[in-house]
Amino acid sequence: MGNAIRVTIWNEFRHEKKDQHIGQIYPVGIHGAIAEGFEQAGGFEVRTATLDEPEHGLPQDVIDNTDVFVWWGHMAHGDVSDDVVSRVHKRVLDGAGLIVLHSGHFSKIFKRLMGTTCDLKWREADEKERLWVISQGHPIVEGIGQYIELAQEEMYGEPFGIPEPDELIFVSWFQGGEVFRSGACYQRGAGKVFYFRPGHETYPTYYNEEIRRVIANAARWARPVAREVGATGNQDPIEDLPWYDRKHAVTEQFGDATLV
Amino acid sequence: MGNAIRVTIWNEFRHEKKDQHIGQIYPVGIHGAIAEGFEQAGGFEVRTATLDEPEHGLPQDVIDNTDVFVWWGHMAHGDVSDDVVSRVHKRVLDGAGLIVLHSGHFSKIFKRLMGTTCDLKWREADEKERLWVISQGHPIVEGIGQYIELAQEEMYGEPFGIPEPDELIFVSWFQGGEVFRSGACYQRGAGKVFYFRPGHETYPTYYNEEIRRVIANAARWARPVAREVGATGNQDPIEDLPWYDRKHAVTEQFGDATLV
Amino acid sequence: MGNAIRVTIWNEFRHEKKDQHIGQIYPVGIHGAIAEGFEQAGGFEVRTATLDEPEHGLPQDVIDNTDVFVWWGHMAHGDVSDDVVSRVHKRVLDGAGLIVLHSGHFSKIFKRLMGTTCDLKWREADEKERLWVISQGHPIVEGIGQYIELAQEEMYGEPFGIPEPDELIFVSWFQGGEVFRSGACYQRGAGKVFYFRPGHETYPTYYNEEIRRVIANAARWARPVAREVGATGNQDPIEDLPWYDRKHAVTEQFGDATLV
Amino acid sequence: MGNAIRVTIWNEFRHEKKDQHIGQIYPVGIHGAIAEGFEQAGGFEVRTATLDEPEHGLPQDVIDNTDVFVWWGHMAHGDVSDDVVSRVHKRVLDGAGLIVLHSGHFSKIFKRLMGTTCDLKWREADEKERLWVISQGHPIVEGIGQYIELAQEEMYGEPFGIPEPDELIFVSWFQGGEVFRSGACYQRGAGKVFYFRPGHETYPTYYNEEIRRVIANAARWARPVAREVGATGNQDPIEDLPWYDRKHAVTEQFGDATLV
Repeated sequence: MGNAIRVTIWNEFRHEKKDQHIGQIYPVGIHGAIAEGFEQAGGFEVRTATLDEPEHGLPQDVIDNTDVFVWWGHMAHGDVSDDVVSRVHKRVLDGAGLIVLHSGHFSKIFKRLMGTTCDLKWREADEKERLWVISQGHPIVEGIGQYIELAQEEMYGEPFGIPEPDELIFVSWFQGGEVFRSGACYQRGAGKVFYFRPGHETYPTYYNEEIRRVIANAARWARPVAREVGATGNQDPIEDLPWYDRKHAVTEQFGDATLV
Repeated sequence: MGNAIRVTIWNEFRHEKKDQHIGQIYPVGIHGAIAEGFEQAGGFEVRTATLDEPEHGLPQDVIDNTDVFVWWGHMAHGDVSDDVVSRVHKRVLDGAGLIVLHSGHFSKIFKRLMGTTCDLKWREADEKERLWVISQGHPIVEGIGQYIELAQEEMYGEPFGIPEPDELIFVSWFQGGEVFRSGACYQRGAGKVFYFRPGHETYPTYYNEEIRRVIANAARWARPVAREVGATGNQDPIEDLPWYDRKHAVTEQFGDATLV
Repeated sequence: MGNAIRVTIWNEFRHEKKDQHIGQIYPVGIHGAIAEGFEQAGGFEVRTATLDEPEHGLPQDVIDNTDVFVWWGHMAHGDVSDDVVSRVHKRVLDGAGLIVLHSGHFSKIFKRLMGTTCDLKWREADEKERLWVISQGHPIVEGIGQYIELAQEEMYGEPFGIPEPDELIFVSWFQGGEVFRSGACYQRGAGKVFYFRPGHETYPTYYNEEIRRVIANAARWARPVAREVGATGNQDPIEDLPWYDRKHAVTEQFGDATLV
Repeated sequence: MGNAIRVTIWNEFRHEKKDQHIGQIYPVGIHGAIAEGFEQAGGFEVRTATLDEPEHGLPQDVIDNTDVFVWWGHMAHGDVSDDVVSRVHKRVLDGAGLIVLHSGHFSKIFKRLMGTTCDLKWREADEKERLWVISQGHPIVEGIGQYIELAQEEMYGEPFGIPEPDELIFVSWFQGGEVFRSGACYQRGAGKVFYFRPGHETYPTYYNEEIRRVIANAARWARPVAREVGATGNQDPIEDLPWYDRKHAVTEQFGDATLV
C-alpha cells in the first residue's frame, strides 16, 4: 500500500489535434491535464497512452505494469482494436482498476464490462452541472464537499443504460432539467470500475481541483488487492466422497470445447 | 398481468441425441422436460427452440413474441451464431426476461450480459447439493421451503466469475466441501436476468417439482413491464436555457460516428 | 396472486383537521385520497387507520390481516406508540409490504427498519419537482413515462440518511438546484419496503394519476410471498456428525438470555 | 491515511471469567487476543474496553477518539446500556467503522444498525467451517487464499436475518450441511460496518493468522474518510426562485417537533 500506484491514462487524443479551440484548452492533451492532476496528488507513477501510438500505446507489458487505467475516448471508439480491448478487459478482471471518464461511456471496454447499451441523453448547451455526493463515507469523495459545481458542461441525462451500480457516488443536477448517475462503482472479477461523468472536451474540466481529487481518490480505491484469485475448472473434492475416483478429475472433451 | 406469459425455452439439444444414457433421462429433450413444468404451473404460453433448427429456432418474430427466454446450453456454446445472440441481447435490454440454467453460465448471451468470465469450479461426482434460500421474501422462492435438496448433481463452486448479483436468492452447499451462488438476479436495461444453477444433463433435475416451481416463479418475476423506456440521444432542454438555440439539437457527425 | 391485496393506509390525520387550507385540499384526509387511488386501480381491499383512533387504528388483528401498509405521518411521529411500531415492524419482517410516503421518512417505523438518521434537506418554496425513472424495467414504474412532473412540491434534497437502496427507482430534480433519491426499494426480513418521496400536505399530490399509479404498483410489488421462512435457533445437523449427540440440541441458558 | 488507525476493541469479557475452560483459551480475554493481532499487523493504535468498566469503557471521549470499533458480545447483550449504544450508533453514522464479530450479531448496536432480527440457526458441534471468498478483489480479503478453514467452530446457518449486504465477502460451508453469509459489508450514514462470523468463545479462533488478517484488513477498509457530510434541515435554494422569500427559511415548529 505504501508503494506508488501505477496509473496509465489512455486518451483518444484526436479532438485536441483536429479542433483548434479544444487544442488551446488542452495544449498537452486531455491525458496531459489528467496526468498533471495525478502528479499534484502524489503517490502515483503516471504513464500516458494514446490511440495513434502503436498498439494504442497499450502493448502487453504496459498492460501488465498498470495498476489502474484511466480512459477518455469520444469520436473514435470504433478505431480501438478489439485485441487491445480484450487485453485491458482481462487485466481488469484479474484485478486492475479502470476509471472511465465522460464520453468513455460508449467505449468498447466499458460496454464490454457492463454488458448493456451504456446509452444516455445528451446536450451541448453550456449549462451548469452540480454533482451531489450520494455516498457520504466513500473513499472516492474524501475531501469533497456536499457537491461539485461546474459552471458549464455538456448535459448527460437518464436513462443511462448501465447495470445498477454496486455503489452510487454522485448524482448530477443539470440546469436544463435532467439528472444523471454521475459516479458509479462496479466490481468486475477481481477488478474495480469507476465511471465518472464530467469532462467534455470543450470545457477545462480536468483542471478543476475537485474533479482531479475525485479521479485521484478513485485510483486509490481501484488499485489491485494483493491476493491470488481461487482456482476454477475441474476440481477434486476437499471432503472425502468415498465413491469418487480422484483420478477422474480431468477435463472431458467434446471436440474442441472444454466442458464445464 | 392476467395474460399468459410467452416463454421460449431454448435448448442446445445435442447431449440427448449423442448420449444414450442422457437420451433416456430426457427422451423429449431437456427443453421438453422444462416445458412440461411450465404447463403444470399454468399461465404460460410455451414454445421451444433448439440449436440445430434454422436460426437456432429464434428468428426475429419468435424473439419479438417472447416475454421470457429460458436458456440451456453446454457442449456447443461456440456454435450459437453471434447474430442470434445479438437479437436476444437486444430483446432482453428492451425488457424481456432471461433465465439461464446450469451450464448456460458459459453461454454467449450470459457472458455478454455479465461482461465477466462467468467461470467457476466444477466436478462430476454424483454428490449431494442443498440449495439454501437466502432471500426470504423474493417472489422466486414463493412456495419453496428453507432449502431444496438434490441427491445427486454436478458440483459448481466459487469463485463464480459474475458481477455481484442485484439479489442473491440461493446459495448451494455441496457434499465435497464447496459453496456456490446458485440463484442470482440481475436487471440489465429494462430486462431481468435470473441465473439458476441446477440441471446437469446426466441427472433428472428438471423433473423435480421444486426446481420446476423456481423456474416458473422466475419467469413470472422476469416478465416484461409495460412501459416505454425514456428517450436517449440529443435532447433539447426541458427548462428554459435562454442562450440556447433549440434548432441546434441535431446530432453532430465526425465521419461515421454518432457523437455523444 | 389473483386475490385482492389487503392494504391498510395509515395517516396521522392531524394537519387536515388543524389547518383549514389543508383540510380543503384533503377533505376526506390524505388517507382518503390515497384510498380512492387504490379503488380506481382495482384489485385491492382497502382499509384506513389514523393516529387518534384506539391503538392508532392498528390493533393486532388489523396488523395480521394486512398485506401492505401505506404510511403517512409528519407532525406527530413522536405520538405513535412504540408498541404499535413494534407490531408493524414484526409484521413487515414476517413478510408484509410497507410503503412510506414523503415525511414518513422520519416515522419511527421507517427509522427502525433503516437503522440510520433518515435525515435530509428540505424547503417549502412551491417549486417544480421532476421525478426521473432510473430503473427502467421495475414493476413499480409499469405504465409510467420517463418522468413524473409535479408543478409545485416541497423540496427534499441529498444527503438523505438512508442505507444504499437495494433498487433505486426514481431520482428527483428540483428547481432550486437539488437532487433526491425519491423512490427506493429495500428487502427487510421477508418483507419489502418502498420509500416514495412526493406528497407534502399543502399540495394535491395524491390526486395525481401517475403518483397514484406508482403507489398501486408498489403495493403489488410489496405484497407478501407465500412461503414459510426457514427455522432459526438451535438445530441438529442435517449431515451426519458421528461424534455429535443429537439430544444435546437444546438451548443453553445463562440467566435469562437465550444464547446463540 | 499514513496515520495510525485508532481501534477500540470492545469485549463483553464475561465468559473468560466465568468459565475456566474459556479462561484458559483466552487468558487475557478475547479482546486481548484480538488486540495482539492488530499489533502484529501494525499501523494501528489499539485500545480495549469491556462491559464491566464504567460506561462499559466507552465514555464519550473514547468514542470521539475511535476510528474503528470491534465488537464481541454474547451472554450479556441486554446489560449494555442504551445510552452507550446510542453513542456508538451516532459515531458510526458520522463516519466511524464497526466490525461486529460472531455472536455480536445479536448485539444492540448491530440490530439497531440493521433494523432486522439478525437471527440465525446455530449449533455447537465442534464441526469444520470453510469460509469461501466470494468478492475476489475486495480489500478485506487482501492476502487471503481461496478459503479459510477452521477445524472446529460453532455453526451459524441461514436464514440470517440481515438486510442484503452491500458487498458479500465470505460464504461459509459447514460440515453439518448448512451455509452462511459469513462476511458482509454495509454503509450506514458516513460509516462502514463489517460483520464477520467466526469466533465462538470455546475455540481459539482469534489466534488464527488468517482470521486476524481479515480483521485488520476490515479495520483499514472501515476507517473514516476525511470529509464533512453535507448539511440537512431547512435550506434556501441554490438556484434563484424569484418568488421565494429567503427570510422564510427558518424551521417551523409544531409543539416540540421540528418539522421536515
